[in-house]
Amino acid sequence: MNLPYLSGEIHTDWREKIIKGCEEQGLAIEFSSAVTNHEASDAAGDVLGKDDNNFWRDHKSAKINAIRIKTNLEQCDLAIIRFGDKYKQWNAAFDAGYCAALGTPYITLHDEEFIHPLKEVDASAMAWATSPEQVVDVLKYTITQK
Amino acid sequence: MNLPYLSGEIHTDWREKIIKGCEEQGLAIEFSSAVTNHEASDAAGDVLGKDDNNFWRDHKSAKINAIRIKTNLEQCDLAIIRFGDKYKQWNAAFDAGYCAALGTPYITLHDEEFIHPLKEVDASAMAWATSPEQVVDVLKYTITQK
Amino acid sequence: MNLPYLSGEIHTDWREKIIKGCEEQGLAIEFSSAVTNHEASDAAGDVLGKDDNNFWRDHKSAKINAIRIKTNLEQCDLAIIRFGDKYKQWNAAFDAGYCAALGTPYITLHDEEFIHPLKEVDASAMAWATSPEQVVDVLKYTITQK
Amino acid sequence: MNLPYLSGEIHTDWREKIIKGCEEQGLAIEFSSAVTNHEASDAAGDVLGKDDNNFWRDHKSAKINAIRIKTNLEQCDLAIIRFGDKYKQWNAAFDAGYCAALGTPYITLHDEEFIHPLKEVDASAMAWATSPEQVVDVLKYTITQK
Amino acid sequence: MNLPYLSGEIHTDWREKIIKGCEEQGLAIEFSSAVTNHEASDAAGDVLGKDDNNFWRDHKSAKINAIRIKTNLEQCDLAIIRFGDKYKQWNAAFDAGYCAALGTPYITLHDEEFIHPLKEVDASAMAWATSPEQVVDVLKYTITQK
Amino acid sequence: MNLPYLSGEIHTDWREKIIKGCEEQGLAIEFSSAVTNHEASDAAGDVLGKDDNNFWRDHKSAKINAIRIKTNLEQCDLAIIRFGDKYKQWNAAFDAGYCAALGTPYITLHDEEFIHPLKEVDASAMAWATSPEQVVDVLKYTITQK
Amino acid sequence: MNLPYLSGEIHTDWREKIIKGCEEQGLAIEFSSAVTNHEASDAAGDVLGKDDNNFWRDHKSAKINAIRIKTNLEQCDLAIIRFGDKYKQWNAAFDAGYCAALGTPYITLHDEEFIHPLKEVDASAMAWATSPEQVVDVLKYTITQK
Amino acid sequence: MNLPYLSGEIHTDWREKIIKGCEEQGLAIEFSSAVTNHEASDAAGDVLGKDDNNFWRDHKSAKINAIRIKTNLEQCDLAIIRFGDKYKQWNAAFDAGYCAALGTPYITLHDEEFIHPLKEVDASAMAWATSPEQVVDVLKYTITQK
Repeated sequence: MNLPYLSGEIHTDWREKIIKGCEEQGLAIEFSSAVTNHEASDAAGDVLGKDDNNFWRDHKSAKINAIRIKTNLEQCDLAIIRFGDKYKQWNAAFDAGYCAALGTPYITLHDEEFIHPLKEVDASAMAWATSPEQVVDVLKYTITQK
Repeated sequence: MNLPYLSGEIHTDWREKIIKGCEEQGLAIEFSSAVTNHEASDAAGDVLGKDDNNFWRDHKSAKINAIRIKTNLEQCDLAIIRFGDKYKQWNAAFDAGYCAALGTPYITLHDEEFIHPLKEVDASAMAWATSPEQVVDVLKYTITQK
Repeated sequence: MNLPYLSGEIHTDWREKIIKGCEEQGLAIEFSSAVTNHEASDAAGDVLGKDDNNFWRDHKSAKINAIRIKTNLEQCDLAIIRFGDKYKQWNAAFDAGYCAALGTPYITLHDEEFIHPLKEVDASAMAWATSPEQVVDVLKYTITQK
Repeated sequence: MNLPYLSGEIHTDWREKIIKGCEEQGLAIEFSSAVTNHEASDAAGDVLGKDDNNFWRDHKSAKINAIRIKTNLEQCDLAIIRFGDKYKQWNAAFDAGYCAALGTPYITLHDEEFIHPLKEVDASAMAWATSPEQVVDVLKYTITQK
Repeated sequence: MNLPYLSGEIHTDWREKIIKGCEEQGLAIEFSSAVTNHEASDAAGDVLGKDDNNFWRDHKSAKINAIRIKTNLEQCDLAIIRFGDKYKQWNAAFDAGYCAALGTPYITLHDEEFIHPLKEVDASAMAWATSPEQVVDVLKYTITQK
Repeated sequence: MNLPYLSGEIHTDWREKIIKGCEEQGLAIEFSSAVTNHEASDAAGDVLGKDDNNFWRDHKSAKINAIRIKTNLEQCDLAIIRFGDKYKQWNAAFDAGYCAALGTPYITLHDEEFIHPLKEVDASAMAWATSPEQVVDVLKYTITQK
Repeated sequence: MNLPYLSGEIHTDWREKIIKGCEEQGLAIEFSSAVTNHEASDAAGDVLGKDDNNFWRDHKSAKINAIRIKTNLEQCDLAIIRFGDKYKQWNAAFDAGYCAALGTPYITLHDEEFIHPLKEVDASAMAWATSPEQVVDVLKYTITQK
Repeated sequence: MNLPYLSGEIHTDWREKIIKGCEEQGLAIEFSSAVTNHEASDAAGDVLGKDDNNFWRDHKSAKINAIRIKTNLEQCDLAIIRFGDKYKQWNAAFDAGYCAALGTPYITLHDEEFIHPLKEVDASAMAWATSPEQVVDVLKYTITQK
């Protein structure tokens, strides 16, 4: 429970809140994450030569990003998977399915309004949290409770 | 390639088109699928006792449905994963991630407008199709071409 | 979902009720089970030579029985695990843990009074049923619902 | 043999005896364990919102606890599994089954009176001990004997 | 328990006794075995060109034989491993280790005199038999006992 | 040994010779193979839309072909991997590496001149044959020899 | 992404360029590689006794080399696989197939002229680079980009 | 190649020769081994209570020893397996089979007289050495050769 992967939404500061909250609790945790800089992420493959075709440009960048994501997912011992209220966020659900197949425990972080559309994702989760603070509490309990 | 799983959208007839198309080509294929009757699926857990709490009712039903989905996903040798233009469809992306982790090949089926939000899902796919007819063509080629 | 293993209690007729209920529904299911004849099971190892020492006699018989149990558990695609109100039934919980580690879905079957002592076992289960009829309903839904 | 997991009974001091005994022998061992504070363990999920329903409250807490248990079980290289004379202790047998499926060696620790009900659990164990002192002896032998 | 592999000694008729015994009991079992014709086995690689060097001739033949042995060992659900009183029979112990690592149950068949030198091999076995008749009894029990 | 995959060179009739040779020996073998029609194989992805860019056209077709190749490689119990005297044939070596990692036995089929460049590929092979007739002999021995 | 394996061509300085480039970027990476001294590699098995037969001499050396290659391939979290313009380089394609089967991400490094013969190898790769500098850029992005 | 397991013969000083030889070469290697003190090994289980029955005494001790052997075998990245000229040494062949099934590379160490009886064990080995010095040479090459 010391190597969590933080997956999903990149437009709010939930990652920072969890990381800072754990630091304040003195927890020895090494978080990993995909690239969260949107432009950098979209342009990840451009160094290998630009493509005019949108599909292949995205494809190339997504595969470069997948090197890190795949490695992180396979090495983490817990994933926190965040669904916000914007965009499709299919990559977050993809990561959840990846964890489920590997048997890696994950916690979802989302509002009540997404209970129904996330029921399959939550069905394989170890917990559903609605705030970064709850995630910090769960991590603290899991790591420090005697 | 004879045991494909059909995952995703349940509001258009893409499943029927693929199944009928394969029959017309004389392909010996045994398709599997999650329960696609929306009300039946949502009520799957009610037989075990009703819950007033929305989360737990969904949770119970989703787990009952997961018995079949998980078994189908682990036994299929190919998945066709369809993203339509309605709803969140996080379960389809979840199935894609599950296949990716298992190393099971999958083909996505979606319109051009979803190229960007599905780039991570497509990055692990063996192919991206835009119509059921294309999927039938790929299945026919894969099974019958000498 | 066509090869369920029936684990646990051997002193009531829950196995027969499930098997008969599925037959009445016309479900094509092949159930497997450990040896449920108590004396035969305890004496399974005697053919290899009797032991005066209780531990070793039990040990030898338990290992003979484990040949079948282990094979059944690894080949089944679903386990139904029954906890009754007598005896320790640690073997049933052992089978549940075995399934959990393999990723094989299982359903528990027990009364309300065991909710608390079975919370860890139920936490990894796909469903908790309180009667054989409910199990039949779940199997019927899982196998036949479109 | 340096990362044993201590599973089972939480109402006697067998964990402390083993840990202290190993320290006295100068063995470099890092033990892990589930949360053994009964009330804290039962309330593990309350931080995510209280449930009136007993089953779901237990379910939520058990899953939070399972994050640590599952991680510990998969990382340990040996489990010591203790069965005392109170309560159902199905979670201990569940952990034994989990280890058996993973191929992780485990040692049971229990009195003679449980030989028969634990025969399936003992059949997959590497050893049966009746006192914490014996466990310490086995650990010492395994780690230090030339 | 319907696909046993018969490993080890090729100079007595223990295989035939087990196969015939099972037929007499009406058991539906499909046995597999390595090539038991000694000369044919030693010459298995000669078709690929003869080698003057003893080591390489044996090496080439052993690898050809390993195609069948490896496939049989990985597909069997039980192995019967026989140690007689002649020759080194390291290949039989090798097969036992292979089964142990795969988690495939095996039964050893040997006389009392070999208890001590086979203690490591027996430690991972599900049973130790001293006659083909005992093996037939165990198979009959495992397959037919209710 | 009844489900061999035939990998590699598509410009000579080695596949036909092996298949015919096995038929003449009355062996019940079900061979599988990638698409061996060169133009069809190169155009496999065109049905999903043509690409002007050479890399992506090849990429798309290679992935469609990989659906069948990957499935065949994972289901086969033996691979015959042929290296001829033309072209780079990196796909044949790729298949060999894939088999090696899966632990699937394979036999190489190539002339003496390739002993040195194929030494790594041969090091993981079960046998090296120089003619289709030798492969048939090995298959016959492996399947029929008592 | 901190333990890359460098596979393939040993006649140009692409390894040195990547290693030096990463050092200049301050990346903490531990590269591994097969033995790249050609004569030493060919003679790896000679210490175990010389063979007159070319095939067996190569075989013995290739197996000694495979101890390191196999260990490196299974421990690396990324492979860079280089195809140059000389020799058959089947060992590089073999390594690529090995990675593909293990699910280990790899990047190919080759010129445009090899797009077509490497299409199957590239189809399973995460990226195709044409210069060591591009590989350094991808590593830098993957390891350091926020 | 830095965590080799030394398996087999305990009556000559081959282990010491290899360990000392590697030290003299300055190789950073951490060797592991089963208990090699014969009396201690045979008495490993006595601490859990003595058995009059020879089989069960050996069984209990062998299982205690298996805790360490199994852990070592699964953690090592190379095994050196020695066959001497005394005793049955079935445990050494068992360890070889265990490694073969896990895909762990191993080197055999034995005299020429055992070429024929060890042909199956050698067929899965990466090398056959006839002296501890040769093993040291192979380790040095594998670890230090550029």
